[in-house]
Amino acid sequence: MFGRIDHIGVAVEDLDDAVALYSESFGMREQHRETVEDFGVEAVLLEVGDGHVELLSPLGADTGVGKFLEKRGPGLHHVAYQTDDIESALESVKAAGIELIDQQPRTGIRSSRVAFLHPKSTGGVLTELVEPAH
Amino acid sequence: MFGRIDHIGVAVEDLDDAVALYSESFGMREQHRETVEDFGVEAVLLEVGDGHVELLSPLGADTGVGKFLEKRGPGLHHVAYQTDDIESALESVKAAGIELIDQQPRTGIRSSRVAFLHPKSTGGVLTELVEPAH
Repeated sequence: MFGRIDHIGVAVEDLDDAVALYSESFGMREQHRETVEDFGVEAVLLEVGDGHVELLSPLGADTGVGKFLEKRGPGLHHVAYQTDDIESALESVKAAGIELIDQQPRTGIRSSRVAFLHPKSTGGVLTELVEPAH
Repeated sequence: MFGRIDHIGVAVEDLDDAVALYSESFGMREQHRETVEDFGVEAVLLEVGDGHVELLSPLGADTGVGKFLEKRGPGLHHVAYQTDDIESALESVKAAGIELIDQQPRTGIRSSRVAFLHPKSTGGVLTELVEPAH
């Protein structure tokens, strides 16, 4: 159902500082940068193998990532698993009793189709499904 | 330097419940179960693509994962990147100014060699390097 770990999402206070950390200290190349208004973030994707680290800087304090930073500080925000059929994957997890944040896929970074599962039904882990753009 | 995301580590309150969630709801197969005394955990590795979800149940309240659960509740605990030369990777991140928790690799799950980087120098993300057993 889930093909692999697509990315981890990391909440950051300063996007340029975080990009410098990951690129200079960890050798990960910046691959893509995008403001995703619907999610209230400016995001940077860094390459690591065939997966990514997604750095997330909030567009405001009242966004999901803004509230996360206020409550928990910078750090691991979510994990995303890749699927090639997000509708089928969503139906399957819903049938298994998982609570969905997104009943239908939304458009995420790089025109991917994404949906989040509620952490209260996934052991506290904010979990994202991603179907990459074809 | 870092080949790919090897696994995400997830702190859990009940290991069997968490295994049931990931295997039954997410279709991830349990691949390995091990008590790693040195890290104070009972751990289960689940397959997702060529990576893993590592579920971590503390052996006691005074362990790293026990304290994490007390402070933050269950959820994302760390991310691990795979390397084929952990000494070289550690030297490289140390030279870049990253603070190491482990100055030298330790033996982790499945006889891997692992070392943790301090979250205060990695933007709040507990980061592990893993060189799998050969």
